[in-house]
Amino acid sequence: MVNQMINIGRLIKRADVSLSRQMNDFARQSELTGNQMNIIDYLSRQENMADNQQAIENEFNIRRSTTSIILQRMEKRHLVQRIIDPHDRRKRQVQLTSSAQQLVPTVHAYINGKERRLTDHFSPAELATAARVLRYLEEDN
Amino acid sequence: MVNQMINIGRLIKRADVSLSRQMNDFARQSELTGNQMNIIDYLSRQENMADNQQAIENEFNIRRSTTSIILQRMEKRHLVQRIIDPHDRRKRQVQLTSSAQQLVPTVHAYINGKERRLTDHFSPAELATAARVLRYLEEDN
Repeated sequence: MVNQMINIGRLIKRADVSLSRQMNDFARQSELTGNQMNIIDYLSRQENMADNQQAIENEFNIRRSTTSIILQRMEKRHLVQRIIDPHDRRKRQVQLTSSAQQLVPTVHAYINGKERRLTDHFSPAELATAARVLRYLEEDN
Repeated sequence: MVNQMINIGRLIKRADVSLSRQMNDFARQSELTGNQMNIIDYLSRQENMADNQQAIENEFNIRRSTTSIILQRMEKRHLVQRIIDPHDRRKRQVQLTSSAQQLVPTVHAYINGKERRLTDHFSPAELATAARVLRYLEEDN
């Protein structure tokens, strides 16, 4: 019997390690980390290039403490700034600074290039199947 | 245009984080970490329950320095021991100790349980498609 689970779990870890390394290598050219690049990409696609910290935690499934550390470093590097949530003045949001906004085209070009190679290689149905398996594994506790 | 790449890369990271947390939670009951459990599983499936360090690095796609730290901790906890490679007396191998061997049924039961839920849920063809996408992403540099 082939142990499919070991293979998929192992393949997920290996793919994640490889994608993170590739992204870190690319990000380094702009003196960023891969995590910072992912957060810049995420915020660039939100209204007003801003969102609250909780949304970032949920997006990347990372702990509050980890998110705080990453965002503090990004704030120090003037990549994000804290603003008042326009929908609820008691809350704060994290917003891309203008200098981070200048990095957005580079970040998008990288991600779109990766995407193009993936959609050149696999059909939409195949990618949808892969996504369903990944979502199931994430949620099956 | 749906940005499929962002979704897949993000889903891989989220699935990996979730699988690692689940495994760490389970491993803690045997005073292990998820990494240690994965290495026990891997070595349990090798000839003589032993392999060289390089094979472990390749299996999990982790750096030599990271692998060294993990194996040193496992050695201290008497989970692995260094032996002479029976095929090449100039080389060393890492072997499961008898106390780690006692943990193997627990580790296999966990992994097989996860596997069963996955194969109950998806066809072999669907799992093969997911595996192809993951392998492609790992290798597409």
